[in-house]
Amino acid sequence: MKGLIGVLGGMGPAATVDLFNKFVTYTVANKDQEHIPLIISSIPDIPDRTEALLNHGKSPLPLMTDYLKKLENAGAECIVIPCNTAHFWFNELKEACHVDILNIVETTMNEVLATKKKNIGLLATNATMSMGLYQKNIESKHLNCITPDKASQEQVMKSIYLLKSGNKKMAERIMKEQANLLFQKGAEVIVLGCTEVPVILENETREYPDKYIDSTSSLVRASIHWYENRMDKQNLIINKNG
Amino acid sequence: MKGLIGVLGGMGPAATVDLFNKFVTYTVANKDQEHIPLIISSIPDIPDRTEALLNHGKSPLPLMTDYLKKLENAGAECIVIPCNTAHFWFNELKEACHVDILNIVETTMNEVLATKKKNIGLLATNATMSMGLYQKNIESKHLNCITPDKASQEQVMKSIYLLKSGNKKMAERIMKEQANLLFQKGAEVIVLGCTEVPVILENETREYPDKYIDSTSSLVRASIHWYENRMDKQNLIINKNG
Repeated sequence: MKGLIGVLGGMGPAATVDLFNKFVTYTVANKDQEHIPLIISSIPDIPDRTEALLNHGKSPLPLMTDYLKKLENAGAECIVIPCNTAHFWFNELKEACHVDILNIVETTMNEVLATKKKNIGLLATNATMSMGLYQKNIESKHLNCITPDKASQEQVMKSIYLLKSGNKKMAERIMKEQANLLFQKGAEVIVLGCTEVPVILENETREYPDKYIDSTSSLVRASIHWYENRMDKQNLIINKNG
Repeated sequence: MKGLIGVLGGMGPAATVDLFNKFVTYTVANKDQEHIPLIISSIPDIPDRTEALLNHGKSPLPLMTDYLKKLENAGAECIVIPCNTAHFWFNELKEACHVDILNIVETTMNEVLATKKKNIGLLATNATMSMGLYQKNIESKHLNCITPDKASQEQVMKSIYLLKSGNKKMAERIMKEQANLLFQKGAEVIVLGCTEVPVILENETREYPDKYIDSTSSLVRASIHWYENRMDKQNLIINKNG
């Protein structure tokens, strides 16, 4: 099927389910056949990204590259990666494959700029924080990036690993506290800059959609846009030749 | 990664999300790397299965075979198909590939027998009903199969297509009525013999888990069992050689 989108997932699996679910619910479709074609790798033995970046853990790049190639071989014409921290290796992955890769930091930043807000909170992994993946982008636009202090960041990380181990309830309690602390520090909107966070804060974002920018949702919306463009081009070619 | 399970999905996409979600929530895992490796095809241009079987529609078999091969080429060692109606072509699909395929009717029937109940209700597509996919199995075990009458079956089908077109609320209202009618007709437990039905009756099955046998859940449980056996054998080989 034309326009096949490959999902390099499993980092973690619950975040990949969330992305897939958002693809299905955000797509306007009247029947199965109108949905967006996806091939999803949720092979979770990719080494932990934060461990690799901060604690000299094994690099995830070889397996990420391997699974990326599986998706390309299966016919994917565009790749999305529902893991913010993995975007540290974005350039290496882009070089390793021959198709488009949408960048979650870019798709999220586009939605941040569209809000016209000045004070942007950030919930993300230690590694995403350390790399400045979002802070640099936010500050380069002359916006104020509000992040948790050291003790709070430990709680954010604890919550993310609690979700990964299946304890969503406890993860949610902790993450809601940390979101509230960012609002108290002046955040007008909070970037959920780790794809586990929208899973953890599912109830909160449903109740207050305008208070959060969900990186997974932004990636899905950009993917649907990519797909629609791809199909428009396809139709132009058919009209021209037919 | 050893033990990779391929999911031949997209029939429909919401049912495939449901299966994936159940894989993640049913697996006991303390970190990403302990989850079950999956490669999921959700390429939804496969022709409608019920249309093919009952209204001389295009056969879904060529595309199902094509996508099955994509999964096999990507390294899948076992295939699952979260669509009951598609199991009409089970033997053809099994012949077309070189790896295990778990049969959703078998995994569901195993759970039916385990309940020791005698009066088994059935909610499924028109095509699954016409083929007698479940009825023959249930009756061969000397159990009583209770199905909707003609007008009710039209409502069941309407609910399934409503979900496929994104109207879950209306789908739920209709399907709940049809489930209640089966209980009134004497069903002790109802087989959800179409993978869209557990998505539609999500709230109902959460509230009354013992009243339903969800074909998707049974397939996921059997897959996890397959994976654990596969890993045990792998460990035996490592112990023997190492």
